[in-house]
Amino acid sequence: MYAVILAGGTGERFWPLSRREKPKQFLSLLGSRSMLQLSMDRLSGLVNPADTYIVTEEKYKELVRQQLPELPLGNIICEYCGRDTAAAAGLAATYIQSRDPEGLMVVLPADHYIADIEEFQRIIQVAVRSARSGEWVVTIGIRPSRPETGYGYIQQGEAIEKLEGIPVYKTIAFHEKPDLKTAVEYLNQDNYLWNSGMFVWRVDLLLRLIAQYLPELNRGLAFIAENIGTEREAEVIGEVYEKLSRVSVDYGIMEKCNQALVIPASFGWDDVGSWTALGRYRESDQEGNVLESQGVFIDTRDCMIYAPQRVVATLGVEGLIIVNSQESLLVCSKDRAQEIKKVIEALKEAGYQDII
Amino acid sequence: MYAVILAGGTGERFWPLSRREKPKQFLSLLGSRSMLQLSMDRLSGLVNPADTYIVTEEKYKELVRQQLPELPLGNIICEYCGRDTAAAAGLAATYIQSRDPEGLMVVLPADHYIADIEEFQRIIQVAVRSARSGEWVVTIGIRPSRPETGYGYIQQGEAIEKLEGIPVYKTIAFHEKPDLKTAVEYLNQDNYLWNSGMFVWRVDLLLRLIAQYLPELNRGLAFIAENIGTEREAEVIGEVYEKLSRVSVDYGIMEKCNQALVIPASFGWDDVGSWTALGRYRESDQEGNVLESQGVFIDTRDCMIYAPQRVVATLGVEGLIIVNSQESLLVCSKDRAQEIKKVIEALKEAGYQDII
Repeated sequence: MYAVILAGGTGERFWPLSRREKPKQFLSLLGSRSMLQLSMDRLSGLVNPADTYIVTEEKYKELVRQQLPELPLGNIICEYCGRDTAAAAGLAATYIQSRDPEGLMVVLPADHYIADIEEFQRIIQVAVRSARSGEWVVTIGIRPSRPETGYGYIQQGEAIEKLEGIPVYKTIAFHEKPDLKTAVEYLNQDNYLWNSGMFVWRVDLLLRLIAQYLPELNRGLAFIAENIGTEREAEVIGEVYEKLSRVSVDYGIMEKCNQALVIPASFGWDDVGSWTALGRYRESDQEGNVLESQGVFIDTRDCMIYAPQRVVATLGVEGLIIVNSQESLLVCSKDRAQEIKKVIEALKEAGYQDII
Repeated sequence: MYAVILAGGTGERFWPLSRREKPKQFLSLLGSRSMLQLSMDRLSGLVNPADTYIVTEEKYKELVRQQLPELPLGNIICEYCGRDTAAAAGLAATYIQSRDPEGLMVVLPADHYIADIEEFQRIIQVAVRSARSGEWVVTIGIRPSRPETGYGYIQQGEAIEKLEGIPVYKTIAFHEKPDLKTAVEYLNQDNYLWNSGMFVWRVDLLLRLIAQYLPELNRGLAFIAENIGTEREAEVIGEVYEKLSRVSVDYGIMEKCNQALVIPASFGWDDVGSWTALGRYRESDQEGNVLESQGVFIDTRDCMIYAPQRVVATLGVEGLIIVNSQESLLVCSKDRAQEIKKVIEALKEAGYQDII
């Protein structure tokens, strides 16, 4: 059993704290440990560091090494550049297959929040058992607690088995992020689950599905497989990645194959996709403010203030995200938090490349 | 003819740009020159630097010297501590009288804005002519352009003379800051003027009025007068100031004497009393933002952003004052700008003495 943590994202929505050279998964947004470290901690007792792989971009290799000193250096798999999750998972499967042709692989995003780690491990163990035969891709679906429009959904079908009291269902369909009306309908039914981005499969099954649905990626991975362990390894990954299209596991494989199972889980999960999401998992004061800053906050309500190196004073403000980094300051209405990418775009256009 | 610029204020309302060690009059809020430097510039051609005095606190002496290198060092009159304008004006009058017993003295605040300097000088010259006889204290009243509740008012009486086409009126009364209803009434009548804090008088008249209405101050100034030019000078000022009460010229003298004239003026005046006031005198963008900062400002309206050392990004905000200094960050609703003193108080209480 192998764990693969996907740690390649750019996390623009946490600008100015996240930067191109230090994206979200490397930030300590939820306490003293980074999101990546928390993802690793969560596997403790379940998967050994020696069997855990981190897929990331070359430029983040040093950050991964620093943050996860317990990880064997050879377990950092470097992508030449970001090509979405299908390529990242396929690349990891190729490495694992060179070591263990029928290895069971658990894919986990590096930048999500999970509250109940014990329950998380229980669910993963059941998923691994379901995936062991090599027939099924097993996904983890999260029971929705609100009509969220920021997540994809998994439509759950009939139960096929029950392991340690946990039912495992066939998957009817994967759905892209819905509009609010649809999200409310999903919430009112009981067979729509949030797509957590966690998958469990045998590497031979994944590579077979890639061969079936993503021939371009398949050819690239085959070429990489021939060169693993040679001095041309990194160069070959670069050659392959340069030409690859960006495809997610969901879009490229899951929506097409009919070999997907889903296990509904309720271990307190969030993709921590924006400053607003962070507010759900950090303690707030009586006025609903989440404060990572010294200072005074007069008549201040429902604000998220992140400025650890500064004294902040606010007076008569509401519903703001305020983030102060070394070079930059963001002040944003909370209901626009999803649009911080626009800020990054505007900064690029205005010539502020060095602060994004 | 002597000019006295009162430069002792603390200007808390411009925190965090203004600090106890560098209050408003020393800041370049309106361009590249500080408020004090602009006050000095405004006298160019009217009063020589050798005849210009700056009254300030001991701790600001070095700042005055740096900002006004053209001023003779002996013309910086140091108060031991702030005791409001009656003491400051009386102290300056005491110095000037030791040099010129019937000297004409123009008192000017160091931290106000004036748009039309030519007209300002014309009005001051008329005021000096009116004050020359030693019978009158001459004040400058500003024709109101809005029902301002942040200023005191001067009620203008009958005209007593017209000099160079400029009428000079007797003063009926001085009024403290009104409520909005009263301010609207003042605006609708044509004989209520804003009290600009500028006064012109002969030093012997001022000292006589102080003797009459402020006997405590009078005794102190007499003691200081005996010691001017001796090595005990600074020490004596300290002894006297320590015991003085805080009294303004308006409250201590003008509201009581009936020797006040007023000259209505329209040279574009503002006391620049808050970040909001500053917005009236700096260019704004199409969305009404006053920006002293690099950055991008998306869906941002009616904001005042002062962060010269930072790149700022705003998204979906309106009516905010955002000020970023080296150690501190202020985010304040514009309609609460007058309450920044509360922030200073709260910071004091919370133990942040070193950043106020």
